[in-house]
Amino acid sequence: MADNNNASSPASTTEGKPILCKAAVARKAREPLVIEEITVAPPMPSEVRIRVICSSLCHSDITFLNLQVPPAIFPRILGHEATGVVESVGKDVTEVRKGDVVITVFLPECGECIDCKSSKSNRCSIFPFKVSPWMPRHGTSRFTDKNGEIISHFLFISSFSEYTVVDIANIIKIDPEIPPDRACLLGCGVSTGKFLSQLLYTRTTFLLKNANKYFKHILYRVGAAWRTAGVEPGSTVAIFGLGSIGLAVAEGARLCGATKIIGVDVNPEKFEIGKKFGVTDFVHAGECEDKPVSQVIIEMTGGGADYCFECVGTASLVHEAYASCRKGWGKTIVLGVDKPGARINLSSHEVLHDGKCLMGSLFGGLKPKSHVPILLKRYVEKELQLDEFVTHEVEFKDINKAFDLLSTGKCLRCVIWMGK
Amino acid sequence: MADNNNASSPASTTEGKPILCKAAVARKAREPLVIEEITVAPPMPSEVRIRVICSSLCHSDITFLNLQVPPAIFPRILGHEATGVVESVGKDVTEVRKGDVVITVFLPECGECIDCKSSKSNRCSIFPFKVSPWMPRHGTSRFTDKNGEIISHFLFISSFSEYTVVDIANIIKIDPEIPPDRACLLGCGVSTGKFLSQLLYTRTTFLLKNANKYFKHILYRVGAAWRTAGVEPGSTVAIFGLGSIGLAVAEGARLCGATKIIGVDVNPEKFEIGKKFGVTDFVHAGECEDKPVSQVIIEMTGGGADYCFECVGTASLVHEAYASCRKGWGKTIVLGVDKPGARINLSSHEVLHDGKCLMGSLFGGLKPKSHVPILLKRYVEKELQLDEFVTHEVEFKDINKAFDLLSTGKCLRCVIWMGK
Repeated sequence: MADNNNASSPASTTEGKPILCKAAVARKAREPLVIEEITVAPPMPSEVRIRVICSSLCHSDITFLNLQVPPAIFPRILGHEATGVVESVGKDVTEVRKGDVVITVFLPECGECIDCKSSKSNRCSIFPFKVSPWMPRHGTSRFTDKNGEIISHFLFISSFSEYTVVDIANIIKIDPEIPPDRACLLGCGVSTGKFLSQLLYTRTTFLLKNANKYFKHILYRVGAAWRTAGVEPGSTVAIFGLGSIGLAVAEGARLCGATKIIGVDVNPEKFEIGKKFGVTDFVHAGECEDKPVSQVIIEMTGGGADYCFECVGTASLVHEAYASCRKGWGKTIVLGVDKPGARINLSSHEVLHDGKCLMGSLFGGLKPKSHVPILLKRYVEKELQLDEFVTHEVEFKDINKAFDLLSTGKCLRCVIWMGK
Repeated sequence: MADNNNASSPASTTEGKPILCKAAVARKAREPLVIEEITVAPPMPSEVRIRVICSSLCHSDITFLNLQVPPAIFPRILGHEATGVVESVGKDVTEVRKGDVVITVFLPECGECIDCKSSKSNRCSIFPFKVSPWMPRHGTSRFTDKNGEIISHFLFISSFSEYTVVDIANIIKIDPEIPPDRACLLGCGVSTGKFLSQLLYTRTTFLLKNANKYFKHILYRVGAAWRTAGVEPGSTVAIFGLGSIGLAVAEGARLCGATKIIGVDVNPEKFEIGKKFGVTDFVHAGECEDKPVSQVIIEMTGGGADYCFECVGTASLVHEAYASCRKGWGKTIVLGVDKPGARINLSSHEVLHDGKCLMGSLFGGLKPKSHVPILLKRYVEKELQLDEFVTHEVEFKDINKAFDLLSTGKCLRCVIWMGK
């Protein structure tokens, strides 16, 4: 490694130069990542080169490793939930500087466009979220392999590398005292679920009355769109997929006073875990005696769940969630990421006649730079739980073990330590 | 005709007996209705036999006349927006009696089930809305032709007949002083749009403050689900289809202070009509220089309309409306009725990434028996406009002219008078 400086090092010998380091490269669909030496170019204007401390594995990494058609592209460096230290910054970057501890977020926030300035949206319109192989601003890669071949980026982050380059729109500076293996969780999945929980949480009036200033800040900034997902006391909730996102949703629903929180998963062991987060009932998908899951949920709830959350990322499951929610007022919220091209099979009559609502949430409706620091502060003040999500950790050399653990549903979040 | 009694006649010679009368029967898909003599059986328990005074033609009647596959069924008596006089009532009917003037509504309201009792739903769960060929409660037909062949019902109403039998769940007693050709409009399409307008209307604070008790009654009864469609001052609205529903939506959007109300129609003459209802801009569908309509609307609104209303009833148009609404916060509301089996082609990624909301509204979210009388009262008090929707009227013998007028987009509502 060309740069072993830590966060407090006064000077960098690598600034402005390419860095040779190790990365776990996805060379081929459905095959283990290959740890190899790559070259990481210096950051271009508005970009930041960071030394990755640790990175957590998200289902989207697995989805895109397994994808065999475009936008799958190989070779590619996956990973997008990371904590790191700024090694150097490109021109025009003033928000962070060398030595700062940062986390990465896949959703850009430029802070200048109509969307970033609106309280109703978290979709930056200057740098719209997409699964691009390139950097968002300059449309090129910073990675090459030892043969000079260009390696693609992933979700603007590519954190399964000792060094990576990330646009300033995808970087959040954090307090270096926060444990890096907790902070990185907020870069994607846990924020998606947690933030949702926080918003659900706000529905209980007594909590609203006692909300501290940070909490109120969230409330003021986030518009009506998200509050429409608020679960009322006594309502029924069905959660498809009891991973990190699904469990965070369960916790939120419990805090709101939902009386029946149904977890749906192919792995019955998830029910025991789910109970700790508020899950009251369980549907073992695939073991419903030839009934569709939606029929089982309709019977369990006397007509359908008031709120259904799709937390897996399977288009067919979105339809199942939609079918499981109650005619007249049910809401289905899509939180999971499916393969591009997957279609949701809804009939026009279903939508018109059933009076249900279908909505999506990318990053839990969160504005990354505005809200993640608030969530981190709440974690430091022990108001927000993150610890329970980290069920496993591995050294970088064992990164493929993390893929196995998450693929087989054996963990919630596995942290990959670059330095261990 | 076996019964020529008017509303105030003291006795009926037909009670409990079959009635021979004329009806316009849909004998074959896409062919003109045939006026022929039929037999209308007496009402069974909880049913009401009515003499139809007049009926307005709705696009759904045309959709089902043109449909060649199930749930199309022939012979069938179409028509579902009617005003009539009660000729006789079946056992257990106490809500209306012989001589009462009533309107028909296709959406049942039993008043007893969890949905009818909930403020959040207008979908009766005892008699769920469906396009059935039979009566909702007893599952049989009351119509036979001169050869004894059973004729199917339509939307529980079948008003293109001098007499029809309707379940008490689909009947609303009205003040006989209200013009029948205005009252009948509230049985379906105009209510769908009008009620929506009323709810949109409530968004402007000054109106809320000045709302009369009836208006407040609506507000209190209708839950958050519908208020989520509220258009804010300064927002942009796109309306697909400038028929009765679309124009009512335009009126509501204007009242809420929407600054850009884009009408989309294949008929450019609709723009002139639309202007009277608040339409500020027009997109001539089919004449967009090879651009999809959604692209034109995205360009006109700088990113997409805040609210898109699909008022035609075409699944592909739902997708176009969804594509036309703004990423981050856009809402698409489906109001039009497509053929059964039509699919909405949304990708899972679109729903997740775009942060849009898709919802349907059957009968404008209205509870028929609770809210239609309020709308009628507002009409009588000249707070609600209905007159401008009736652009044409025909005698019963000319009913096929009404189909031509509406099919070719030449009218908003054509009233068919049974006695003229």
